[in-house]
Amino acid sequence: MTAGRPASSVPAASRAAAPAPPAAPPAPTRAAELVEGLVAHLGPAKVATDQATITVQSRDQSPHREGIEAVAVVFAECVEDVQSTVRACAAAKVPVVARGAGSGLSGGAAAVPGCVVLNLERMDRIVEIRPEDEVAVVEPGVVNADLNAAAAPYGLMYAPDPASYTFATIGGNIATNAGGLRCAKYGVTRESVLGLDVVLADGTLVRTGRSTFKGVAGYDLTGLMVGSEGTLGIVVGATVRLRYLPVDVQTIAAFYPDFPSAAAGVLAVGRARVQPSIMELMDAGSIADVDSLQGSDLASRGSALLLVQTDGYGAAAEAEVVRAVLAESGAVVSAEDPEEAERLVFLRRTSRGIGADDAFRVGEDVAVPRSRLVEYAREVERIAAAQGVNLKIVAHAGDGNLHPSFWVDPAAPGAEEAVARLDAALDESIEVALTMGGTITGEHGIGSFKLRWLPLEQSARVRALQQGIKDAFDPAGILNPGKAF
Amino acid sequence: MTAGRPASSVPAASRAAAPAPPAAPPAPTRAAELVEGLVAHLGPAKVATDQATITVQSRDQSPHREGIEAVAVVFAECVEDVQSTVRACAAAKVPVVARGAGSGLSGGAAAVPGCVVLNLERMDRIVEIRPEDEVAVVEPGVVNADLNAAAAPYGLMYAPDPASYTFATIGGNIATNAGGLRCAKYGVTRESVLGLDVVLADGTLVRTGRSTFKGVAGYDLTGLMVGSEGTLGIVVGATVRLRYLPVDVQTIAAFYPDFPSAAAGVLAVGRARVQPSIMELMDAGSIADVDSLQGSDLASRGSALLLVQTDGYGAAAEAEVVRAVLAESGAVVSAEDPEEAERLVFLRRTSRGIGADDAFRVGEDVAVPRSRLVEYAREVERIAAAQGVNLKIVAHAGDGNLHPSFWVDPAAPGAEEAVARLDAALDESIEVALTMGGTITGEHGIGSFKLRWLPLEQSARVRALQQGIKDAFDPAGILNPGKAF
Repeated sequence: MTAGRPASSVPAASRAAAPAPPAAPPAPTRAAELVEGLVAHLGPAKVATDQATITVQSRDQSPHREGIEAVAVVFAECVEDVQSTVRACAAAKVPVVARGAGSGLSGGAAAVPGCVVLNLERMDRIVEIRPEDEVAVVEPGVVNADLNAAAAPYGLMYAPDPASYTFATIGGNIATNAGGLRCAKYGVTRESVLGLDVVLADGTLVRTGRSTFKGVAGYDLTGLMVGSEGTLGIVVGATVRLRYLPVDVQTIAAFYPDFPSAAAGVLAVGRARVQPSIMELMDAGSIADVDSLQGSDLASRGSALLLVQTDGYGAAAEAEVVRAVLAESGAVVSAEDPEEAERLVFLRRTSRGIGADDAFRVGEDVAVPRSRLVEYAREVERIAAAQGVNLKIVAHAGDGNLHPSFWVDPAAPGAEEAVARLDAALDESIEVALTMGGTITGEHGIGSFKLRWLPLEQSARVRALQQGIKDAFDPAGILNPGKAF
Repeated sequence: MTAGRPASSVPAASRAAAPAPPAAPPAPTRAAELVEGLVAHLGPAKVATDQATITVQSRDQSPHREGIEAVAVVFAECVEDVQSTVRACAAAKVPVVARGAGSGLSGGAAAVPGCVVLNLERMDRIVEIRPEDEVAVVEPGVVNADLNAAAAPYGLMYAPDPASYTFATIGGNIATNAGGLRCAKYGVTRESVLGLDVVLADGTLVRTGRSTFKGVAGYDLTGLMVGSEGTLGIVVGATVRLRYLPVDVQTIAAFYPDFPSAAAGVLAVGRARVQPSIMELMDAGSIADVDSLQGSDLASRGSALLLVQTDGYGAAAEAEVVRAVLAESGAVVSAEDPEEAERLVFLRRTSRGIGADDAFRVGEDVAVPRSRLVEYAREVERIAAAQGVNLKIVAHAGDGNLHPSFWVDPAAPGAEEAVARLDAALDESIEVALTMGGTITGEHGIGSFKLRWLPLEQSARVRALQQGIKDAFDPAGILNPGKAF
C-alpha cells in the first residue's frame, strides 16, 4: 500500500441501504480451479489468496457490505498479466473487478461476490514524457502525484488532482473520471486523456483515441471509457495531456460570517470574469473538523472560508480583482504567503477526514448549477437539522460540486434508528439537488453505492442505452458487473 | 440559406475516390408514400421536394458524388417534427440524414441514396441564457455567432469557433465535435457541451448528461453523441457551458522567412508556458491566396505567419513573453492594434477560400503531435512537389492540427490524370501523419469522405466496437447510415 494512504477501517455494521449483490457468486469448485490456474500461469507472487489481502483488496473507501469478497487478488505487472487474467475469468465466467489504490468513494472498485480482483498498482511505469508534445504515456498504476513530480522539471503538470492525488492512481482516476480542485480551470480527467490502451472482456488489447490534442475519428471511445468504472474494459495504458505548470500562483483566503455569504462570493468572482484555478468552500463544521484534526485555528478567522487560487501570467492581476470583489461581498480577505497558502490548500484537501465511509458517516457528491449553491447549502442544513444528523460541507464551488458529509454517533444509544435518519437525510439531499437541476454525482461516480439514486436522475431508456453499450463491450457481463449504471 | 454562407458550387465531375453508397436506395413507391405521409402530417411548408432544394440540401462542403440525393427535405420547427419524421422514416425503412447549415467538410451531412434530409435550421431558438450558471440552452439550429452575440452582454462567450462560425449551427458543431481557433485554450465542442436532448432512432426523446459543469452519473452518453455525426440520434437541444468573455485580448503577428521557422515558434511559446487562446500558422501559399482574395498585403511582411492571441487578465503579460520568444526565434514581430488584429484573424479564418471542395481541390485536416509540425509540413511540401500538385497550409498550430489544401487546375489538359495525382498526394499525406503518431482528422470528422482512411488509423476491433454501439442505438441502421466509422 502506498505511503500516505489512509488505512481502511470499516466497522462491522452492514449497511441496510447498500445495493444487492448483482449475481450469485460462482460455484466454489469453478472458482478454486480458476485460482489454481491463475497461480500456475502467473506465479504465486502475483496471486494472493490470503484473507488479509482479500479483505483489504475487496474494499474501497465507500460504505461496504460485510462478506462480499474476492476469491483471489491478482497483482498484474504487465499487459499480458491482465490479458491472461481476463481470459481465464471469462472462460470460468468469474467476474473481474479492476482496481488501483482503492481510494474511490462510491464502491466502483469494491468486490462483487466471488470475483477476482485485478490490482494494477504494480503497473506503475511512466513510459514517457514528451515535453514538446505536452504529453505523457503512463501505465495505470502510476500515482497521480508521481506523474506530477515527473512532469514538473519540464515546466508541465498533470492537471486533474482529486483530494487523494498523493496515493490515487491514474488508472483509478480514469475509471471514475476524477475531478479535484484544479478542474475548476483545467477540466476533469476526461479533458486530459487523449488515448487509452484497453483490455476488452475477451482479453483483446485495443487502442482508443490518439496521441494528439485534437482528433475526431469515429466515436469517442476514449471518453466513453473514462468514467466507466472498469465495466467496459480494463485500462492498461494512457496517453495524457499535460498542461503548463503555472509561472505564478496566488492564493486568496476569504473568511465570511456564514456559508451562504461565502457561496455568494463565488458568483461575484464569476461576474468579474476571473477563472480561478481553485475555488473551494468550507463551512463552519468543516473548519472545526480541520482545526481539531490538524491543529489549525481557522475558526478564529471566520465561520466559512472561500479559498481561491489564481495561476499563470495573470495570477497577480486576477488575485487583485478577486480580493476586491470578495471584500466587497463582505469577506475578510487576506493574501496568503506561499507557505500559508500551501497549508490552507492542504487543509482543504484533507478536510474529508480519514478512513472509509461507513453506515454512520457518508460523504456526498452532488453538483448543482452554480447559482443554486447558496440555496442548496441552506436546504441540506435544514434537512440535517430535521433528521437530527450532523453535517459539514465542503465544495468545489467553482464547479457547483458539493461534498456534504452526514454522520451520526455510532456509540450513542439507538444507532440503528440513527442510521435510518442518516439515510433519510441522504435521500432527501439527493432529491433536492435533482430538483435544482443538479446531478447525484459530480466526480465520485455511481459505483455501487449510488445506484439506488440513478433512476431518479436518468430515465429507463437512458439506462437501457447504457446497458446496450455494456452488452456490446462485455456480452458475458464479467467486467465489474452491476456497477456504474 | 443563412446570409454569409458561401454558395455551394460543386462541379459535375464525379469523384473516383468517394466511398460507395452504403446501401441501395429504398424502392421508389415506398419513398413516395413516405413523402406523401410527411407532407400530410407536417404540412407542405415543412417538406420540400423541389429539385433546387433537394440539390442544395443533399450536399455539404465536401467533395460530393453527383446524383446521390434525398427524396425530400423536412424543415423541422420543433421536437415533435423531428420525432414524427424519424418515426415515419423508421416505419418506411428510409434513412434520415440530419443537417444544419451544411458547412461540414467531410460529408457528414451529405445525403445518402434515397434518404430524407432532416434540416434543423429553423429550430434556432436560444431557449435561455443563465449568466450566473454560465450555461445556455439552445436549439440545434442556432448559429454559433448568434449564441456568442447573445452571451456577450453577460460577459460570456461560447468558446468553440470553427471558421464557419458565422453560419454554422451549434447542432452541426456538436455532430462533428467542431474545433476552431480558440480551442487551443478553451477546448473543442465536447468540452462545452454539458447535456443533450436527443431523438433516438425510434423517435423517443431522451436527455443525456446534465446542467452542471461536472457530473459522472453513468457512461458519458453526451460525449458519445458529440462527434457521432447524426448516426446515433438527432440532437434537438443542447445545454452548453459558456466561458468568460476575455477582459483583454492581445494579438501578436510574427512573420518568418519560412514555414518551418514559424512552426518552431509554436514550441518556443510552449516552453515559455504561455497558453494562447489562438495560435495559427499560415504558409506562403495561404498568404498569397488571402492577399489575392482579400486585397491584403501580408506577403510583403514575410513568407510565413504565426498569429497568436492571448486573452484574459494576463493577456498583456503573456503577449510580452510571446513577442520576446518569437523575436528570439527569428520572427519579425508586431503588436497589432485591435482593428488590424481583427482583420488578421478574419483573414486567417477565411483562408480556406470559398465554396465546397471538389475533385480538384481538397482541404485536409490531420493532426500530429506538436513537436512534429515542422517535419510534417516539410513532408507534405515534398509530397506535393513529387506529385506535381499545388499546396497551401494553414494550421491550428497550438493543437498540432493542420489543414493542407491540395489542388490541381481543372481547366488544364489531362485533368483526370491530375486528379489521380491529387489523390495520391492526399493518401500519402494521411499516411505520413499516421506514421508520426497523428490522426486523419483533427476536427472535421470522418463523414463519408474520410472513411477510406479510417482502417489505417483504427483496428478492425475498434471499428467493430463502434458498430456495436451503433447497433445498440440504431438497430435498423436508419440514422445517417454508412457515416462516421
